[in-house]
Amino acid sequence: MKLRKFSIDDASLERSPGQEADIFVGNLVDERDGGPITIGYGRYAPHQSLAETMAVDDVMIILEGRVTVSTEAGAVVAGPGDIVHMPTGESVTIRTNEEGALTAYVTYPHWRPAHT
Amino acid sequence: MKLRKFSIDDASLERSPGQEADIFVGNLVDERDGGPITIGYGRYAPHQSLAETMAVDDVMIILEGRVTVSTEAGAVVAGPGDIVHMPTGESVTIRTNEEGALTAYVTYPHWRPAHT
Repeated sequence: MKLRKFSIDDASLERSPGQEADIFVGNLVDERDGGPITIGYGRYAPHQSLAETMAVDDVMIILEGRVTVSTEAGAVVAGPGDIVHMPTGESVTIRTNEEGALTAYVTYPHWRPAHT
Repeated sequence: MKLRKFSIDDASLERSPGQEADIFVGNLVDERDGGPITIGYGRYAPHQSLAETMAVDDVMIILEGRVTVSTEAGAVVAGPGDIVHMPTGESVTIRTNEEGALTAYVTYPHWRPAHT
């Protein structure tokens, strides 16, 4: 594989699988590229919610807006420049407020084959 | 492992190993935590340069400023919100201009044991 650079405009966003919220994700690097990790962008409309038990380690970097991520143990609020690490096995709920959010994500291993 | 949220203030930045440039990195999650990936922040002073052959897959998300990453094949310029994927085996040179840069990074596997 070669060096690559991505911007949000490079991502083809589609609804995050298995739910109906206005949360859209676009992989830029994934299992089709032969490497170990998936890279992409996520766009969350305002006032959305997504509950998931993590099948992979997911690192979410908040680029715009704000997300609240909660588990049984409590909740964290993350804004621009913050990083949220959601390890395999954690049950999380991601919520946006009136701002919505734009995020970048990196998962190991690839989230899509793990999800299906 | 549990859900964790990080901000730049959580990182203890130290000079990137093996070079004398004003480039500082701080791991927030790494091999000591028992998971598969390393997560951290990097701070690049203006007009710095770092050359490296990648021992791991490194994903760099630019949070502030600008970086130019060059390989034999050419160069990319990345600014806030952009993602640069530096795969294992690539020889890269990362440069900052007068702005410097703040980045987040995710590596698989852990970069520190691979580096030494």
